[in-house]
Amino acid sequence: CLIMTVSFTGKLIIRPISTERTRGQTVVGITNGFISPTFPTPLLDLLPAKNGEEPTMQFLLEVVDILTNYVKKTFDRSTKVLDFHHPHQLLEGIEGFNLELSDQPESLEQILVDCRDTLKYGVRTGHPRFFNQLSSGLDIIGLAGEWLTSTANTNMFTYEIAPVFVLMEQLTLKKMREMIGWPNGEGDGLFSPGGAISNMYSVMIARYKYFPEVKTKGMSAAPRLVLFTSEHSHYSIKKAGAALGFGTDNVILLSTDERGRVIPADLEAKILDAKQKGYVPLFVNATAGSTVYGAFDPINEIADICEKYNLWLHVDGAWGGGLLMSRKHRHKLNGIERANSVTWNPHKMMGVPLQCSAILVREKGILAGCNSMCAGYLFQPDKQYDVTYDTGDKAIQCGRHVDIFKFWLMWKAKVSRVDRRVHTCWLKKTEKHLQANKNLHGFPQHTNVCFWYIPPSLRGMPDGDERREKLHRVAPKIKAMMMESGTTMVGYQPQGNKVNFFRMVVSNPSVTQSDIDFLIDEIERLAHDL
Amino acid sequence: CLIMTVSFTGKLIIRPISTERTRGQTVVGITNGFISPTFPTPLLDLLPAKNGEEPTMQFLLEVVDILTNYVKKTFDRSTKVLDFHHPHQLLEGIEGFNLELSDQPESLEQILVDCRDTLKYGVRTGHPRFFNQLSSGLDIIGLAGEWLTSTANTNMFTYEIAPVFVLMEQLTLKKMREMIGWPNGEGDGLFSPGGAISNMYSVMIARYKYFPEVKTKGMSAAPRLVLFTSEHSHYSIKKAGAALGFGTDNVILLSTDERGRVIPADLEAKILDAKQKGYVPLFVNATAGSTVYGAFDPINEIADICEKYNLWLHVDGAWGGGLLMSRKHRHKLNGIERANSVTWNPHKMMGVPLQCSAILVREKGILAGCNSMCAGYLFQPDKQYDVTYDTGDKAIQCGRHVDIFKFWLMWKAKVSRVDRRVHTCWLKKTEKHLQANKNLHGFPQHTNVCFWYIPPSLRGMPDGDERREKLHRVAPKIKAMMMESGTTMVGYQPQGNKVNFFRMVVSNPSVTQSDIDFLIDEIERLAHDL
Repeated sequence: CLIMTVSFTGKLIIRPISTERTRGQTVVGITNGFISPTFPTPLLDLLPAKNGEEPTMQFLLEVVDILTNYVKKTFDRSTKVLDFHHPHQLLEGIEGFNLELSDQPESLEQILVDCRDTLKYGVRTGHPRFFNQLSSGLDIIGLAGEWLTSTANTNMFTYEIAPVFVLMEQLTLKKMREMIGWPNGEGDGLFSPGGAISNMYSVMIARYKYFPEVKTKGMSAAPRLVLFTSEHSHYSIKKAGAALGFGTDNVILLSTDERGRVIPADLEAKILDAKQKGYVPLFVNATAGSTVYGAFDPINEIADICEKYNLWLHVDGAWGGGLLMSRKHRHKLNGIERANSVTWNPHKMMGVPLQCSAILVREKGILAGCNSMCAGYLFQPDKQYDVTYDTGDKAIQCGRHVDIFKFWLMWKAKVSRVDRRVHTCWLKKTEKHLQANKNLHGFPQHTNVCFWYIPPSLRGMPDGDERREKLHRVAPKIKAMMMESGTTMVGYQPQGNKVNFFRMVVSNPSVTQSDIDFLIDEIERLAHDL
Repeated sequence: CLIMTVSFTGKLIIRPISTERTRGQTVVGITNGFISPTFPTPLLDLLPAKNGEEPTMQFLLEVVDILTNYVKKTFDRSTKVLDFHHPHQLLEGIEGFNLELSDQPESLEQILVDCRDTLKYGVRTGHPRFFNQLSSGLDIIGLAGEWLTSTANTNMFTYEIAPVFVLMEQLTLKKMREMIGWPNGEGDGLFSPGGAISNMYSVMIARYKYFPEVKTKGMSAAPRLVLFTSEHSHYSIKKAGAALGFGTDNVILLSTDERGRVIPADLEAKILDAKQKGYVPLFVNATAGSTVYGAFDPINEIADICEKYNLWLHVDGAWGGGLLMSRKHRHKLNGIERANSVTWNPHKMMGVPLQCSAILVREKGILAGCNSMCAGYLFQPDKQYDVTYDTGDKAIQCGRHVDIFKFWLMWKAKVSRVDRRVHTCWLKKTEKHLQANKNLHGFPQHTNVCFWYIPPSLRGMPDGDERREKLHRVAPKIKAMMMESGTTMVGYQPQGNKVNFFRMVVSNPSVTQSDIDFLIDEIERLAHDL
């Protein structure tokens, strides 16, 4: 591995470095090449120290060397996805990697070794054979955007301290609202720390719309309010129900069809049931791309019911929202323009680095109405610029991380290619696989592909409780072996009356047919003796 | 400026580059040195493209060149803190910097120019003359930590996908609880997206402790609950009251003394008043380091009252928590070990890059009890490792950004110096200034220094409404001129019956006496004609 050093004359010097390590102790030996007089660099030599510029540049370039090597290897299929260790093993310290915080400061060299080790024992979520989460891949433009964001180190609180980022957020949210189909992209919105918080916002503003007095008087000012969401929806709707004071009992789960889509008639029946009990239906969440099946609820039919009963319609498109960018697939979200609010996480299908989630609202001003406390000591009305750009008071956060820049930069770089991205026929490729392999039984939808692997010992067994119990234990066993071998990763879970099954997700454009083949072959290899 | 290029042979090539720009169009001209055959690089050549490694490394190193130049200049006092433009100016496009998202993808060269422009028109929060926020400075170790975090691009959801980070969080939270003084550092906690959310957690778990049935039944299962917090406390307690269904009317503000500290007798009187009205006091927030004054509420006296009336005691140490690391100053938080929960933002006094905020809880298990939904499809109980390390279900978020690594790395690098950091006598230096300059009238506390500048025209005027009104307009005028000139930044606000005054905050170790002198001189220069 190469180390770049900035010498006293400002030149970059590149030299090979060999790292020998013994348990509990680290020796960085330079076996060949130039030794900079500033190396090893004591920590106190970094900026803001006097003459700290060169040691700082040297240190940062050494970090970048570690990171770019990591990036290269992440795209290299001969690299493992992970090097699994149990918690107790990592806590005990592996090959001298000491996680404990001691009272003695470490040297800069040790800090670099810590950086290398942190990456070594982590999971390569950008690896083309990582199929484990809805968020995967490592977009180079997005990565550059995150590095810049960290360097700018500001927050979205006011235009005063984040002028460019605040405007980027505003323009990007407008574009997203245009994609949703709201007239002229009008409305409101915010980037929030993840889809769960975006969904929580939707419940808060729905309550504010119909019962604004709850803001000052609390839930006792409202009747018993009821929220509706699919039994397959994300658990964040229930979490919001608990947190915001509705109670999870008042989050009514809707039945779904065999592909995991809400049955509109069930929604209407449950609304009527709630009304008959004297409760007040408030809010319906339609999921566009469910977590496990990738199911799209029928938004138009749900919107009809919401209009009929005057309910707030939220679309949780955290996962499926990316399809709005696809001419071919956006029909799956038909009716989304009728929603009052939408959650859309560019950090999922659109491959933006974590975190990047938007809550989008059709009615302008309602976010501020719901959340603002008009704290004059934080948001001064008498500034010299147009303070409507100070968006901090619309949020439930005060400081807010800059999540917009990487997304803005990616949009600038490749907007026309996002369409192609979601066009890629992962689904078809995998469907073909499922059909061709008689030991895989599955139900693919969106780019989620759910399937059981039937091991040799279960192939002849008739269906029944015993087979179900055994099949339930298959996926966890395979997953455990898969993590130990570190070659690939895919998630599993039960759902409803279905025993544990795999859910493969493709949201990484690096994935090729051969990677999908590899996953399937690897499952067969690992499960050979089951 | 230098561009590093990775040539086809894998060598780094360094060459000078000159960038000439005309309005609306960018020309990157290479006037001297080696021109790599891969430059200009079309976007599609980046990884995961075949042979994408070299163009990717080249692109990332060019980005790093931009970022390291920015870092260098941030520490250079001859650089401006900001280059102010009004929103409409930036939206119109300055010198070709186009914020709009078009339907045409940009070239990689333009992406690099966009990166440069984004930094150019932003605010240098790491500049030693930026005194505007509680978070400032640019810590080099922390910056390296953030770059690595972005590159790892995972989330804190499960041990499965973030093994190292999950353990780092656990170990660091334990250390923080030890600093608070809870026996053996036992308890619970999470890093959350900012102090406002950490404070919101504290209210949620207090409610769950006393009225766990609210989780399922909603606020109607509880009596009218009342929260208490200082009139000088952060507005997030009120926001939490609104969001969680208590209502802001049930957030009772406590009176403070002349230095902004809660008067314990007022707390007790208001508790008794609430009880007499039939309401149920639930929660008291004591602020350790208030936003404007930097005031520390008397925690021990407040804790006595909380014990007497069986109330949850939360300490909002978002700003002042950093003093727990200081042998000299930690007495200001005496009694914090009696709190049930604590907010502590290492991204403030401890200089960790944004965002880094912890909610710490004395009772183990209560975070999970309050928030978990036991979604089997997300948190599988039948994994091969100890799933108590899967912390996702404790949070109100689902995906959670990795905020721990930069902090862990900084702690490793310089724990023994944190003490020194908060020892630095900024306060004394500025007090000296206030005393020496008869035109500054202020009330310094912590490292917040609040003061009025009395301009020449007001010096002879007797106190009264006219003078107050005029003085109220002085700070905004000076601040506007200051931002236009871009030389330094300091915040102002009114508070209570005090008209607009400046609040200078020092939380950046780069700040020297001469920077404080500069700020004061600059205010005098700008206000000369007022």
